[in-house]
Amino acid sequence: MALALTLQQLAQLAGGSIVRGELSVTVTGLAALDAAGPDDVSFLGNEKYRSQFAVTKAAAVIVPPGEYHEGTAALIVAENPSLAFAAIVRHFAAATRSIAPGIHPRATVDETAELDPATVCVQAGAIVMAGAKIGKNTRIGPNVVVGEDVVIGDDCHLMANVTIRERCVLGHRVILQPGAVIGADGYGYEFSGGRHVKIDQVGIVEIGDDVEIGANTTIDRARFGKTVIGEGTKIDNLVQIGHNTMVGKHCLIISQSGIAGSSKIEDYVTIAAQVGIVGHVSVGSKAILTARTGVTASIPGGETYAGKPAIPMREEMKFQAHLRRLPKLISRVKSLESKMAEAESAD
Amino acid sequence: MALALTLQQLAQLAGGSIVRGELSVTVTGLAALDAAGPDDVSFLGNEKYRSQFAVTKAAAVIVPPGEYHEGTAALIVAENPSLAFAAIVRHFAAATRSIAPGIHPRATVDETAELDPATVCVQAGAIVMAGAKIGKNTRIGPNVVVGEDVVIGDDCHLMANVTIRERCVLGHRVILQPGAVIGADGYGYEFSGGRHVKIDQVGIVEIGDDVEIGANTTIDRARFGKTVIGEGTKIDNLVQIGHNTMVGKHCLIISQSGIAGSSKIEDYVTIAAQVGIVGHVSVGSKAILTARTGVTASIPGGETYAGKPAIPMREEMKFQAHLRRLPKLISRVKSLESKMAEAESAD
Amino acid sequence: MALALTLQQLAQLAGGSIVRGELSVTVTGLAALDAAGPDDVSFLGNEKYRSQFAVTKAAAVIVPPGEYHEGTAALIVAENPSLAFAAIVRHFAAATRSIAPGIHPRATVDETAELDPATVCVQAGAIVMAGAKIGKNTRIGPNVVVGEDVVIGDDCHLMANVTIRERCVLGHRVILQPGAVIGADGYGYEFSGGRHVKIDQVGIVEIGDDVEIGANTTIDRARFGKTVIGEGTKIDNLVQIGHNTMVGKHCLIISQSGIAGSSKIEDYVTIAAQVGIVGHVSVGSKAILTARTGVTASIPGGETYAGKPAIPMREEMKFQAHLRRLPKLISRVKSLESKMAEAESAD
Repeated sequence: MALALTLQQLAQLAGGSIVRGELSVTVTGLAALDAAGPDDVSFLGNEKYRSQFAVTKAAAVIVPPGEYHEGTAALIVAENPSLAFAAIVRHFAAATRSIAPGIHPRATVDETAELDPATVCVQAGAIVMAGAKIGKNTRIGPNVVVGEDVVIGDDCHLMANVTIRERCVLGHRVILQPGAVIGADGYGYEFSGGRHVKIDQVGIVEIGDDVEIGANTTIDRARFGKTVIGEGTKIDNLVQIGHNTMVGKHCLIISQSGIAGSSKIEDYVTIAAQVGIVGHVSVGSKAILTARTGVTASIPGGETYAGKPAIPMREEMKFQAHLRRLPKLISRVKSLESKMAEAESAD
Repeated sequence: MALALTLQQLAQLAGGSIVRGELSVTVTGLAALDAAGPDDVSFLGNEKYRSQFAVTKAAAVIVPPGEYHEGTAALIVAENPSLAFAAIVRHFAAATRSIAPGIHPRATVDETAELDPATVCVQAGAIVMAGAKIGKNTRIGPNVVVGEDVVIGDDCHLMANVTIRERCVLGHRVILQPGAVIGADGYGYEFSGGRHVKIDQVGIVEIGDDVEIGANTTIDRARFGKTVIGEGTKIDNLVQIGHNTMVGKHCLIISQSGIAGSSKIEDYVTIAAQVGIVGHVSVGSKAILTARTGVTASIPGGETYAGKPAIPMREEMKFQAHLRRLPKLISRVKSLESKMAEAESAD
Repeated sequence: MALALTLQQLAQLAGGSIVRGELSVTVTGLAALDAAGPDDVSFLGNEKYRSQFAVTKAAAVIVPPGEYHEGTAALIVAENPSLAFAAIVRHFAAATRSIAPGIHPRATVDETAELDPATVCVQAGAIVMAGAKIGKNTRIGPNVVVGEDVVIGDDCHLMANVTIRERCVLGHRVILQPGAVIGADGYGYEFSGGRHVKIDQVGIVEIGDDVEIGANTTIDRARFGKTVIGEGTKIDNLVQIGHNTMVGKHCLIISQSGIAGSSKIEDYVTIAAQVGIVGHVSVGSKAILTARTGVTASIPGGETYAGKPAIPMREEMKFQAHLRRLPKLISRVKSLESKMAEAESAD
């Protein structure tokens, strides 16, 4: 059953009081004023949205103290509607996460795997293979595959259809969104006799505490040794991390970016969407790579980059300004040529 | 068993008559003349392919009325070979889709889920979680995960290994190709105390009627409220749609494109491959974004765009033409400088 | 249990002799000198890494004949440490691959599927549908879906959560990394009555011998006929191959590249990361496309390309050099204009 809250429950969560509306009003969703429907609660966080408030279709709205004659939504007054709404958001979030520990009868847990079914939840269709070790309070989602000898820390959440291949290691509080693949073979071949011959990839992926990895993102195992994702780093959907790459702590890597093998990303680096980084280079700490930057050589940290090859953003902006002057420059040269021809003919 | 058709069955489907070949000829596949093998039927839709017809390896070919002495394929004459072939294609398509309704004994359907096993098909390994509602004639493919309280309309087809997370809503006749992930958490963090702290993502994804979503494409749930994919929109493989993004009706979004959070794509927009659109912008109705366009600010509809930042395509083409003149421009400036130097020294 | 090797076993594999360390030393991993931890074996392959050797945390190191007083790692002397280490890598690789044939009780194999359980391994949660044929020694990983009438050759390995849709054909020794999707519908619609109407995609994907396909990569089935991946071609993660595309033999296609429909890639082509190739073009044999090249028209083989549209790399490099001269060019034109103005005013 979807979560449903009555007006009274909303008021309690919001720490506010009902000033308009029937107690029988219930909501099942949360939405901004302009997007809300008749099953949603919303909030007026800023007077500039007053016109949206006047026509909102929300069932209930959290408002700051004041006079409200517009619309028909039930109203709850709270000192700080944004904070009050955040409390309701947290309530919804908590509700959707509650799940009982235990091994679902349709899960397949190898007898040599180590986990405590009193705190660990293994959902239907999940496969936990031989020798895997799973920490307490960790949740293995439906149809997840945990490979042989994988080690997973406490309080992790592996969502549906995730794959972790053999021997990879996850820290505590790691979140893997659906479809993420950890520990696929690195892309390595030797060309011999007219054919590409596979180079064994026997290393692992090691993921630090508090890392989150997006849906359908792929992180390759090392040739030998480790591909590392440092503590606190957050990776978005459809990102590719190559073999033996070292990503530092507390980095952000946005959707559809790719980092080739054996590169080193230091701590607190931000990599915006669709960035590409070649193999065997380093990106210094606190570097910011704007969307689609192409990194083809090592770059120092503490700087914002753009372009391909990556250069400091302000240089790239100057360069783009120069580019925009190109059509005019062509005219200017043409005009100079005319004058020169004129001058020459005048001689 | 793969579908096999005799020459006679082909002639019936084509509404044509056999003019050459043994009745014992059977085909199991369809192919263009130059790609066909000895188990395929093909067609001569245009006289310009006559030379391909002469050497085709197809077992049978649908031809228009005329004289045919080339090759050895069995021949079926039909007034309009393209239409006749399309009828055979439809026959193959229908054949591969027939599947009986019912819940496979290896599927796991929560007892609180609502679906009619007389019309719904839940294939082996599929997981349908608590509170999910599935409309009639819908097919849940093998190893699909349908999260808690998900609502799915009639006549949908969720293919193998698809994930739909909790509370997302699908309309009627929605097709999800394998590996698609609907409702992963949006990418949202607050930086606090040197760490990125996760912002709860409690909204949903709402998908309209007649939407198709490609293999391994990811669509994130809203922070709160909804990420929306409008009716009739068709999304290709490996596309990323960020949280709270609103995609209009009847859009086309081609492979490997990404749309960041909270952007608004109006109706009938075409987004070609590898396009990137930043967050919090709008793209007007019927805009066409050519491949790899980078949209960094809101753009009006009814226009074809290219480049990064996106500009109207004809301006981008002019600009590219200017760029191509750059080497020559450098020579022209050099020549002017020589003349100027000469003129000066002559003074 | 993770693979553990004693010092003595290491020495045997390395064909070397122990010159320092306790026989009780065991290792469970392999790593470069600078990345190794106390459970790893490493090697000193080149004297230039001697300083890394001095401080390595490895439990054991393979060294060439010589004098070693640095560090505390157990030491094994071998004539060629690189070769000796490769033998240990192979041992680890072999160890992780050993798996017994047979159909796991939690796998679902249709009674009409053809496979020999004495040599084929079907792991837990895998679904093998009606009419599928699987060659000898092939391994179907956990939660893999093999569609109806799929044909798979000998000695293949389909890793976890792979999907192969109906009727697709795989050769021998094919490796599919986790999450790969073979045979999703091609992206084809007709615009009619204000809506995009799906064009049936009834063809297949045909994959040659010795092909490897990366994690979460998607290869679409043909409209009719075949999408073909030629023998020996190796495809990285998150790559998109459109319908009816023909990829030749022994090609390399790196991560996040996309090839649109009906294009033809000849043999021995290398496609670096994030490349895009439009539909209906050909790329000649042995062409090399550097990262992010955008191919918008057919290009001949035997050449290295860059840029968008793709041009030979040396021309692109010349062009980039010209671009870098643009700011200076603007100054030069400005200077010419001043001189010209001076000259004119002097007249």
